[in-house]
Amino acid sequence: MRIGILGAGQLGRMLALAGYPLDHQCVFYDLSGSPSAGIGEIIDDPDGSRLDEFLDKVDRVTYEFEHLPLEVVRQIADQKPLFPGVKSLAVCQNRAEEKALFERLSIPTAAYRLVSTAEELAEAAESLGCPVVAKSVTEGYDGKGQAVIRDPREASGAWERIGHKMLLVEAFVDFSRELSIIAARGQDGEVAIYPMAENVHVDGILRYSFAPAPNLCTEVAAEAEAFIKMLLDELGHVGVLTLELFETPDGLMANEMAPRVHNSGHWSIEGATTSQFENHLRAVAGLPLGDTVAHRPTCMINIIGKAGNDEDLLRLPYAHLHRYGKAEREGRKIGHVTVQADSYEELVWRVRNCASLLPGTPELSCSLTRK
Amino acid sequence: MRIGILGAGQLGRMLALAGYPLDHQCVFYDLSGSPSAGIGEIIDDPDGSRLDEFLDKVDRVTYEFEHLPLEVVRQIADQKPLFPGVKSLAVCQNRAEEKALFERLSIPTAAYRLVSTAEELAEAAESLGCPVVAKSVTEGYDGKGQAVIRDPREASGAWERIGHKMLLVEAFVDFSRELSIIAARGQDGEVAIYPMAENVHVDGILRYSFAPAPNLCTEVAAEAEAFIKMLLDELGHVGVLTLELFETPDGLMANEMAPRVHNSGHWSIEGATTSQFENHLRAVAGLPLGDTVAHRPTCMINIIGKAGNDEDLLRLPYAHLHRYGKAEREGRKIGHVTVQADSYEELVWRVRNCASLLPGTPELSCSLTRK
Repeated sequence: MRIGILGAGQLGRMLALAGYPLDHQCVFYDLSGSPSAGIGEIIDDPDGSRLDEFLDKVDRVTYEFEHLPLEVVRQIADQKPLFPGVKSLAVCQNRAEEKALFERLSIPTAAYRLVSTAEELAEAAESLGCPVVAKSVTEGYDGKGQAVIRDPREASGAWERIGHKMLLVEAFVDFSRELSIIAARGQDGEVAIYPMAENVHVDGILRYSFAPAPNLCTEVAAEAEAFIKMLLDELGHVGVLTLELFETPDGLMANEMAPRVHNSGHWSIEGATTSQFENHLRAVAGLPLGDTVAHRPTCMINIIGKAGNDEDLLRLPYAHLHRYGKAEREGRKIGHVTVQADSYEELVWRVRNCASLLPGTPELSCSLTRK
Repeated sequence: MRIGILGAGQLGRMLALAGYPLDHQCVFYDLSGSPSAGIGEIIDDPDGSRLDEFLDKVDRVTYEFEHLPLEVVRQIADQKPLFPGVKSLAVCQNRAEEKALFERLSIPTAAYRLVSTAEELAEAAESLGCPVVAKSVTEGYDGKGQAVIRDPREASGAWERIGHKMLLVEAFVDFSRELSIIAARGQDGEVAIYPMAENVHVDGILRYSFAPAPNLCTEVAAEAEAFIKMLLDELGHVGVLTLELFETPDGLMANEMAPRVHNSGHWSIEGATTSQFENHLRAVAGLPLGDTVAHRPTCMINIIGKAGNDEDLLRLPYAHLHRYGKAEREGRKIGHVTVQADSYEELVWRVRNCASLLPGTPELSCSLTRK
């Protein structure tokens, strides 16, 4: 099967790599002008004139990035089967719709306001109680288009900096850790759920993911599984869906979701029987989903901005290197390393060794190191 | 690094798949007229006129197939670093040189004669004692160019059928099972050795590989490791080398070797920390070698001639499917399935389940089923 992927970054690259053993060929459609996947055929189309050419080459379409113009996506869905569907994409690319969905399904989430002026932002900060987080309703990812407001008087500055027409303002959540749950749903409604990951973000960018999340209560895991099942079914989702959550003393709170393979699921390439990439493609292709069991404690470390010395990394017998074919640039995800061990204690030791070889990687601080 | 691969079949395809995470791009050079790798750039050059174009595109050259014209390989090695080197290739493509090397290093191997007429073949069959196996000295693989001679009077028919100028005639080895050992050697002489595999051939074609080989005496493993280390060092080999062996009541006997990744090492994609493909590329690129530890009993089943129903296979939670992008054709390797389990007992059960879904796959008969 020929699978078209909207976007041509590292997620698409890893989807394509998972596709070859299933005899799926991936063709990329890139609107950004800077495709990096470096694999398969790439239709580089910054002015949008080559969409038909792309569609002629593929049997089905999926995407590695949800911030796509909805009118283009609808046009695509009219011509080829698109998975996940337009509904999933529309909800996940808009924080206001996402919040409304969480509320409709009674999935706990931070209190929020929608504001469309600096004055409304100041009022929201006042009524929700500072600190609050202001986020652009659309197009934000990796901490972009966000600001923390610690005093309502900072509202106008934050409004200017973010520069969007509508912001979602959220009460600050006092969480003990960040978690994510990733699941795939097939065209027949079958659902395969991965063990949850504990994620460490610094400055809004994911740095470390541990999976299975250490010391996770079975009740908490069951709650998260119930949330993602509801979301998958409500959206009629086909493919991988990722839900980011906060663990708080009062239970889980949904943060945001993504209708795609996710950075916090990269551990599954080595760590799970079937990777998130393979399961996404299986769902898109209408194949049965694969087993999501994790066999050993696993950690994914992002390589951001600057690469280390690959030779030093590869000398560690437990490090799996994944470079994305991208040049170094500040804040850019250019690769990741996966580390496995037989115990979390050994894993932390190995992760620290690895991280010491990756310039600019913040020191590990997670539930395993805070005792 | 841009790595050129001579040949564009499934071994090249799996090398390329292992190369992307290391940021290596593979370019293929195909002389066969029927490249199947289906990944990366392929220089399709049945008349040999585009070699310079290929060499311009790559930094280093390796190969997935050893039956290459030596004059072409020498020409390549004059222009770009070639790993494994010409010496490894020259020895491994010629059974007479291979045998001489085994003898020089005191690696036990079956008694043999070289013959260049049907009469000499009959004499060799007589003196070695039937049955004997006659093999073309060059170009034979997957049981091609071979004949078993059960009576010296069959010699002239066998000579005609094989149709080569020189044959190597071997005494029949009464073995209890077939094993292989795979190792990678780096440019600095570092060696990484995989756990041995037990291989099940039917009609000269590999059907099943179990790794680590079950019930293997540590002395036998140590002997095989000593053999392959001697071979690697003697050849100054860089990359993966595979040695096929017979286990007999009197110890190991070398059968043949290949200067490349090998079908009996495909299990390492899921079964070892670092796959044979990644370690081959690491050696070619001058990077440190990766850990070869196997974590669980693993079996590779070849898909030959005809595919099963992929959906049925993918429904088995323990089956990893690898299709090669090749059309069905009798006797052709078109894919493989890897199965893992926590015990050999469970593994055999799973392998049988899998094999029942692959048409034409012979019933499993190996050391685990013969009690």
